[in-house]
Amino acid sequence: MHSVHFTAETSSNGVLERDFVVGEVPGVLWLPASGSDQAPLVLMGHGGGLHKKTPGLMARAHDTVTRWGYSVVAIDAPGHGDRPRTTEDEQARTDLRQTMAAGEIELFESISVRYSASLAERAVPEWQATLDALQRLPEIGAEAPIGYGGGMSLGTAIGIPLTAVEPRITAAIFGGGFFAHAALVEAARRITVPVQFLLPWDEEYVDRQSVLALFDAFASKDKTLLANPGTHRSMRWVGIDNEFLVRYLGRADTSPA
Amino acid sequence: MHSVHFTAETSSNGVLERDFVVGEVPGVLWLPASGSDQAPLVLMGHGGGLHKKTPGLMARAHDTVTRWGYSVVAIDAPGHGDRPRTTEDEQARTDLRQTMAAGEIELFESISVRYSASLAERAVPEWQATLDALQRLPEIGAEAPIGYGGGMSLGTAIGIPLTAVEPRITAAIFGGGFFAHAALVEAARRITVPVQFLLPWDEEYVDRQSVLALFDAFASKDKTLLANPGTHRSMRWVGIDNEFLVRYLGRADTSPA
Repeated sequence: MHSVHFTAETSSNGVLERDFVVGEVPGVLWLPASGSDQAPLVLMGHGGGLHKKTPGLMARAHDTVTRWGYSVVAIDAPGHGDRPRTTEDEQARTDLRQTMAAGEIELFESISVRYSASLAERAVPEWQATLDALQRLPEIGAEAPIGYGGGMSLGTAIGIPLTAVEPRITAAIFGGGFFAHAALVEAARRITVPVQFLLPWDEEYVDRQSVLALFDAFASKDKTLLANPGTHRSMRWVGIDNEFLVRYLGRADTSPA
Repeated sequence: MHSVHFTAETSSNGVLERDFVVGEVPGVLWLPASGSDQAPLVLMGHGGGLHKKTPGLMARAHDTVTRWGYSVVAIDAPGHGDRPRTTEDEQARTDLRQTMAAGEIELFESISVRYSASLAERAVPEWQATLDALQRLPEIGAEAPIGYGGGMSLGTAIGIPLTAVEPRITAAIFGGGFFAHAALVEAARRITVPVQFLLPWDEEYVDRQSVLALFDAFASKDKTLLANPGTHRSMRWVGIDNEFLVRYLGRADTSPA
């Protein structure tokens, strides 16, 4: 059983940022500088090719900490960020780059779907081990409500199977395109917690029907599909139900800074 | 040019309710009891077969007044509520009831679409005359920002052509199903103000593709599609971006009660 080893710490604008590793998985924890005991914990995933400190993710993490007094955690997906790449990772990246450059969209999609599924298989137990370790920290604890706070595309390809098998997650935000594969739809059928699903309306190569079928599959009584103009990289997060997580995770006991 | 003639007035929970007629169109105005000078004005439409004081509409109107300090107005659609029915109205109601009872869904849909379009043709100039008259009241005034605050199905079949031709409306909420007809898509193409579109995910007879095509048609840069489980009568309004109208209409100068 791995513990959390903190490797660095910085603080800005009321947010404490603590880098860590759990086993071989590097992660980052954002906490209210004013204290975070038992505050709800939000897991954030990054997109394909990106990493745990991608600017968009950082901005959402800071917002979540300062607005709600929550803690936020992100980890690098396998083969991403500070992690070594396997031969499979290198091959997949090369194939994705080449098929995209050549405009071979169908091939790009099938590689993307297969590679995401492979990453998710590795990432789910890593998230679970990270959660186990974080819950043994006094500043998190075993009682803090836990939500999956989103992340487009890869963050969702990992988040859906994670939420399907992880009873500690009690609400989840997903989003993006490229979700046609049957395993993901199967995982969605096992999810019963409240779900908010963000659909970038103008995703260039998205198969909207497959996203709608995925949304259909969630067994959650409370689920919301939300579409905005833009792609998953350019979409402005307007019209988002900012209180979604608060409804299900509750407020932090300590007021945010 | 018609004026507003007030016919009744009641007050409860900080909300003043004033019935009126403009010409032959009966309406109701909900105002903050604490004062409403130049507060943003929200137009609300009712669903097919319903009327201006339907409980769901009343609840949303009260919420809008007490939460934001806004004024809200609703009018009866032609042939609805307190208004006389023409032969066409009676025939359409009979046809809709009979086709539904017989399970002739395609026929029901085509009658519904045709009748809604006819109602919208009559209702748009009625809404405009009502607005003209309301803006001459000191408690509303010509400067108050105006939004279309929604109403499923018929409220949207009227609201879309109204918003397309009415420059005073600067933000709009629409929603529901049954929207396949070309004239509505054409009207949507002329709308450039921010739009929030609510889609009841389990609408029994809704053609989702036609709703998505309608959403596509809005020329608005800022538009959000939001789907929740349920039909347009049973859908719980969760995940709604409650601050949507406030972002575009601003806050009332006078604080709500």
